[in-house]
Amino acid sequence: VPIDLQRILRSLNRSQTRTLAERTRDTDRTVELCRALLSERGEVSGARLASDVLAAYRELDEESVELFFDRLVERFSVDPDAVRRTADAYRRDASPENLAALQKAVEAPRQELFRRCNMAPGGTAILVDMRRRLLRSLRDHPERAGIDADLVHLFRSWFNRGFLTLQRIDWQTSAVVLERLIHYEAVHQIQGWRDLRRRLESDRRCYAFFHPALPQEPLIFIEVALTRGMTAHVQPLLDPESPVDDPAQASCAVFYSITNCQQGLRGVSFGNVLVKQVVDDLGREFPRVKTFATLSPIPGFRTWLVAHGTTAGRVSSELATLLAQGENITAASLAAARSTLRAEIVGLCARYLMTTEPGVGAADPVARFHLANGARLERLNWMGDTSAVGVQRSWGLTVNYVYRLGEVDRNHEAYANQHRVAASREFQQLVRRRGSRA
Amino acid sequence: VPIDLQRILRSLNRSQTRTLAERTRDTDRTVELCRALLSERGEVSGARLASDVLAAYRELDEESVELFFDRLVERFSVDPDAVRRTADAYRRDASPENLAALQKAVEAPRQELFRRCNMAPGGTAILVDMRRRLLRSLRDHPERAGIDADLVHLFRSWFNRGFLTLQRIDWQTSAVVLERLIHYEAVHQIQGWRDLRRRLESDRRCYAFFHPALPQEPLIFIEVALTRGMTAHVQPLLDPESPVDDPAQASCAVFYSITNCQQGLRGVSFGNVLVKQVVDDLGREFPRVKTFATLSPIPGFRTWLVAHGTTAGRVSSELATLLAQGENITAASLAAARSTLRAEIVGLCARYLMTTEPGVGAADPVARFHLANGARLERLNWMGDTSAVGVQRSWGLTVNYVYRLGEVDRNHEAYANQHRVAASREFQQLVRRRGSRA
Amino acid sequence: VPIDLQRILRSLNRSQTRTLAERTRDTDRTVELCRALLSERGEVSGARLASDVLAAYRELDEESVELFFDRLVERFSVDPDAVRRTADAYRRDASPENLAALQKAVEAPRQELFRRCNMAPGGTAILVDMRRRLLRSLRDHPERAGIDADLVHLFRSWFNRGFLTLQRIDWQTSAVVLERLIHYEAVHQIQGWRDLRRRLESDRRCYAFFHPALPQEPLIFIEVALTRGMTAHVQPLLDPESPVDDPAQASCAVFYSITNCQQGLRGVSFGNVLVKQVVDDLGREFPRVKTFATLSPIPGFRTWLVAHGTTAGRVSSELATLLAQGENITAASLAAARSTLRAEIVGLCARYLMTTEPGVGAADPVARFHLANGARLERLNWMGDTSAVGVQRSWGLTVNYVYRLGEVDRNHEAYANQHRVAASREFQQLVRRRGSRA
Amino acid sequence: VPIDLQRILRSLNRSQTRTLAERTRDTDRTVELCRALLSERGEVSGARLASDVLAAYRELDEESVELFFDRLVERFSVDPDAVRRTADAYRRDASPENLAALQKAVEAPRQELFRRCNMAPGGTAILVDMRRRLLRSLRDHPERAGIDADLVHLFRSWFNRGFLTLQRIDWQTSAVVLERLIHYEAVHQIQGWRDLRRRLESDRRCYAFFHPALPQEPLIFIEVALTRGMTAHVQPLLDPESPVDDPAQASCAVFYSITNCQQGLRGVSFGNVLVKQVVDDLGREFPRVKTFATLSPIPGFRTWLVAHGTTAGRVSSELATLLAQGENITAASLAAARSTLRAEIVGLCARYLMTTEPGVGAADPVARFHLANGARLERLNWMGDTSAVGVQRSWGLTVNYVYRLGEVDRNHEAYANQHRVAASREFQQLVRRRGSRA
Repeated sequence: VPIDLQRILRSLNRSQTRTLAERTRDTDRTVELCRALLSERGEVSGARLASDVLAAYRELDEESVELFFDRLVERFSVDPDAVRRTADAYRRDASPENLAALQKAVEAPRQELFRRCNMAPGGTAILVDMRRRLLRSLRDHPERAGIDADLVHLFRSWFNRGFLTLQRIDWQTSAVVLERLIHYEAVHQIQGWRDLRRRLESDRRCYAFFHPALPQEPLIFIEVALTRGMTAHVQPLLDPESPVDDPAQASCAVFYSITNCQQGLRGVSFGNVLVKQVVDDLGREFPRVKTFATLSPIPGFRTWLVAHGTTAGRVSSELATLLAQGENITAASLAAARSTLRAEIVGLCARYLMTTEPGVGAADPVARFHLANGARLERLNWMGDTSAVGVQRSWGLTVNYVYRLGEVDRNHEAYANQHRVAASREFQQLVRRRGSRA
Repeated sequence: VPIDLQRILRSLNRSQTRTLAERTRDTDRTVELCRALLSERGEVSGARLASDVLAAYRELDEESVELFFDRLVERFSVDPDAVRRTADAYRRDASPENLAALQKAVEAPRQELFRRCNMAPGGTAILVDMRRRLLRSLRDHPERAGIDADLVHLFRSWFNRGFLTLQRIDWQTSAVVLERLIHYEAVHQIQGWRDLRRRLESDRRCYAFFHPALPQEPLIFIEVALTRGMTAHVQPLLDPESPVDDPAQASCAVFYSITNCQQGLRGVSFGNVLVKQVVDDLGREFPRVKTFATLSPIPGFRTWLVAHGTTAGRVSSELATLLAQGENITAASLAAARSTLRAEIVGLCARYLMTTEPGVGAADPVARFHLANGARLERLNWMGDTSAVGVQRSWGLTVNYVYRLGEVDRNHEAYANQHRVAASREFQQLVRRRGSRA
Repeated sequence: VPIDLQRILRSLNRSQTRTLAERTRDTDRTVELCRALLSERGEVSGARLASDVLAAYRELDEESVELFFDRLVERFSVDPDAVRRTADAYRRDASPENLAALQKAVEAPRQELFRRCNMAPGGTAILVDMRRRLLRSLRDHPERAGIDADLVHLFRSWFNRGFLTLQRIDWQTSAVVLERLIHYEAVHQIQGWRDLRRRLESDRRCYAFFHPALPQEPLIFIEVALTRGMTAHVQPLLDPESPVDDPAQASCAVFYSITNCQQGLRGVSFGNVLVKQVVDDLGREFPRVKTFATLSPIPGFRTWLVAHGTTAGRVSSELATLLAQGENITAASLAAARSTLRAEIVGLCARYLMTTEPGVGAADPVARFHLANGARLERLNWMGDTSAVGVQRSWGLTVNYVYRLGEVDRNHEAYANQHRVAASREFQQLVRRRGSRA
Repeated sequence: VPIDLQRILRSLNRSQTRTLAERTRDTDRTVELCRALLSERGEVSGARLASDVLAAYRELDEESVELFFDRLVERFSVDPDAVRRTADAYRRDASPENLAALQKAVEAPRQELFRRCNMAPGGTAILVDMRRRLLRSLRDHPERAGIDADLVHLFRSWFNRGFLTLQRIDWQTSAVVLERLIHYEAVHQIQGWRDLRRRLESDRRCYAFFHPALPQEPLIFIEVALTRGMTAHVQPLLDPESPVDDPAQASCAVFYSITNCQQGLRGVSFGNVLVKQVVDDLGREFPRVKTFATLSPIPGFRTWLVAHGTTAGRVSSELATLLAQGENITAASLAAARSTLRAEIVGLCARYLMTTEPGVGAADPVARFHLANGARLERLNWMGDTSAVGVQRSWGLTVNYVYRLGEVDRNHEAYANQHRVAASREFQQLVRRRGSRA
């Protein structure tokens, strides 16, 4: 959001004018405030001290934040000696007191620090943003994984489903929230207010989860079209000029976009709960809607196909020619494919979507989400997404996953325990047909 | 609340008709649902399963709840072997992975169980109520302390100050909330709606903390009178017929009642934050108000005085005569005390209030709260509370603690580190005067 | 409301200390401000001047208000000469301009005065209260009828149904509003908060009309019980201890109380719209509810019966004996009536309820309201209201009027045009049976 | 709004397919429903009948609406005979009854019809829209002036200041309302959402009046900039990229746009009240803001200047040359003016702004509004608005009117009674200087 941007720009700006000594001083002051907050005094004047900590932290420039993260590792981590001592005591006597002491010893002090920081107004938002920055640095700083674990532990507790509220987003919603949807939408970018408005008309639904401590800040949102059949094609859905249909006539709810908004909450999953809640709510509002399906991209398909095609003889020569176009592949060249080639691609894609890997699950990341969530593969759509990105990533294909509340548990368990992928008969045949050919 | 009462009556009723076998069956079914909720399946259909668990739990009668608590100890506690194993691994190699494994091992599975229960609507309320019941059984079941520790750990996280909202309560508030205030008020019982209404007039303030997951359910509330001087006497404050004063003329805010509403949240402290927040807010709304004082009972005074007076020669013969009345002491007999006797009692009370005990702090529980919170002892008021309970517990005395934001930190630290009690000069003189006499 | 009371007491108080000269001065000052508000200047600084007028008016004591009403007659009435002049012009030439001039001439200046007064905050409330006072004085001051007509004209426009909002009242409602219900309830007095609470339980409904300019001030409210059959008896409905029934099982909605709250809005009818709106809403919320009936008093019955019984031979000797008890009649003596006497009374009551008078309509005022509103007489209930007032006014009888949306128009027109009273066959037979006897 | 547009397009469309006979039928059906609504029956089933009337009206195509207006003149006007009769009666006896009868006779039945129409949901909006259409047709149909008078009479009563709510509009406001601002803004067109957003930043304020019966439909709104001095130039204010200033530093509130949104409410003035209310509110929120000024166009200046310049010798030859450019005049040619020419233009403009005409007031329409409202002419700004429209209409000049609450009444009265225009000394000198030259 512009606000983030402003802040970054501001600190970038400042960073040019601050010396290393100054940065160390800034960071040390912040750390000192953290210590005070964790002390006795913090119990009495917690809210005020927490505000001071957060204010000091927000004044840090980019480099100082890095220093601060280092300090969180050096000075606010678990004390191994204390762990060993309390573990020994517990070994000798597994009493509740000794367990409590051990539990205390294995919790890093920074976890309590974060808890107390949260007492200040706006604390939650700053902590979520802190993790966003932290995540960017993890690759270069594996030693910071512990900070991340502590934040995730807290966020899992704080952002428990029981504390989230599901809100419908429509044209009555405040511009603050709507602007954020425009900013966050990751699946099919929103091209400004006119585009957004179309997505909030009476034949559409948009829902988001909010947390009381982050007012007007969507955590995740989902966009739904109420249609007369299971939509195959993305472009008509996204056309701001498309006519508005009567939702009372709809037989199908198509989930065409799910976006996680907060990078700082990565790994704290809301998506599965959201989908089911929305299926439930829509089912009650529109008793005539019987099918709840996604219209999803297949983001890993091209990469997989390229890898697959490198082994000679595995793909037809026509397909090999197409593959040779690499990233320059266009909707036009795909549209020109003859029916056998088309069948070959569709078959391979079906096979890809049903592919699972040990310890990972489905190869495709979107498939991984919906299959683990209990949905089933329903239908593959040729030329379902003819946008540049759709062609590049998914060779223009889209897939519908279908949610049937009655089979969600069964599908999930079969998938989770045996990596068995639920798919409609039609879908399975795509693979088999292709299989007989290979 | 009536609702609780109804539920208890209902289950009591039912308990008479249920056999032990039936109770075991009920409990086992609940435990089974708990297991399902903790399993793989719980990740996908968590909200639904959580609802099932809570529904099953609510159907349990009193005795079955006891069985259920037993099961939580037997089957959802920490596995000592796993703790030892992971502790050993950590001893050999204090790697982040080994720490994470140890952290996981020392957390009882019921903690995750509670977290998932919270996904269902109303989950938080049921868990808070579960702890209320648990606390009642702790004395007879010390082995359940672990359950309590797990619930407290969660509640400390969930009921973090950052998630609470401070709301003003007045005559505009919904009857649901107001009825609860009447029910909960513990310091000076509210004698019905007329009494309540007086306490919400324009020269009074009432604030409560709420949590978003417990709508319309106050966690703690505080009652304040805006007065022209530091009030010494309780009865005029509580008189529903007392004239309403102009708050703009007030120079003093008197906190005459603080009530924690949720037994299930015992030990998750809100009071200190609440007092300071209210001092802050009132200070802004009424710049002319300079004194923020409590008008507090001294609940432990009589007991202490009785114990003190048993040693011969420590009290005057007049006081000994009074003490001999025991619990039958009346406001009248106190009112009749001559000035030397009065001075003796006041002096002893001042001494009592400044008494601290190692590992405990102030001897008086209310003093313990306000002193730890950074307030100071300001003034003792003879005949400050002439109600039956006021006479019995505090020999009719009341005390004003004063909050000065500027010295709160200092007072707290002196008290926390050296058990040094902050008191006004006037107050200190009461003790000294008395001391010279002993 | 207490607030009114306070104001009255205050002014009563003051009135003792004010001389006639002072009152005249107060009134003249108010009148002067009224003139200013009506002048040119009023167009620019209307809101401020209006506030001044209202403040001055509120300071007037009771006697000065009387003087003020006199001034409104003397100085802010229609100018007969202007009317004649413009009427003459219109007679000569019925042009739009001449019509407009005549329209202007026949409108008293005080009407514009009231309109401008309404610009000040709280203006509407004060004007409504002004009419309440005015109405009390009309009998002694028939010359003030014009003021009343002007206020009614404005209120009819301002309190148009399109500006009213129907709100459900329940235990979530603010204490301010609930306290007012207790204060206003006129049909079956509310005996405090416990009684009120029972009337707002899940098997009851309460709705009120509000106007945006009178926030939290109910204009009219209706109390409904959702029951398993058409209730005949008042007392069980009003019993605070009566068990709460499951509203989903209800087949009948019983309207047991309708109260107009604002004396100052007398003659601006909301009742008919309210009943129909509520029938509509409840019908949608509870599709199983098929019968919408009132449980109504028959306030004029005893008076009518006494008059009727004075003509010798018209009533049985047993009834004559009862009538002789006059106002001392008790529930016990009615309960002791033998079946023939009972039949005689019921038959007479049925006859009374169907009685209409030219230019008035139904003789009974409650009947007048419901019959004009399109309801029909359904059933008479012996011992339906055994309260003291029920026995005194209605000889313990209650009546159910039934609303069927399908026949409401027809019933109304038959009643309005030919004074034909709609009644169930059962009800009609009560009259006929009686008739054959006379 | 787009919605209006759609409706118009829809009806335009339909109008092509409907014959005159069909239109007559549609209209007659509507008229019949109107009669029913006005009848006895309307009193009982008013809300439902009103809905029917409005539904029928909304189905009318453009031509049928014209027919409908004709019917409102023919069949729902005042009956001249009844007026004469009642006027005669009143002449003979000016009794309250006769006055009431006359009042009733001079009110056209359609007024009561409109009042009853308002009982249906959405009635107010439809009536306001009806007047919008009516106004467009008045020039060709002077006989419809009576309909207009009746609607205005109602609207004056319904849209009384006491019923309006002032709401601040900012980025928290719902998109529905914001979109309407974009649509309605008449002074300085809003160029989309980015432009709007800038106008709602923290150094700006936007307020609108709303009526409870027209939710989310602004009646009038005003845009204010909080600045460090009295702004002279429009363009920097409107620049979406202009930096956001700290409102706490502002010394001046500049009203740079006031827009009446509802054509159907023309003549029901809100503007004067709005300005004063906003001055009041801002004055309280920002005690440091001492100057409340407009930055206004001078829409009639060019026309006046052209007329003025046609008389030979009244303007300098340089000015004559410029005037010769007519509508092709550009900012560049004005910018090139030498200081004497510039002074001549400014002087003429000052003279124009102070010009008043008998029965009209100030010659310039914007001046007419602010001067009648009690503001004074403060300063003329050369090149204050360099937009095409600014140059064309006002030769690039802008003017600041200043509101001082202390002198508003005096200014208004001097203006209203003697057409005396309030102006700062500086402003008066502009005229005088110029005058000495002429």
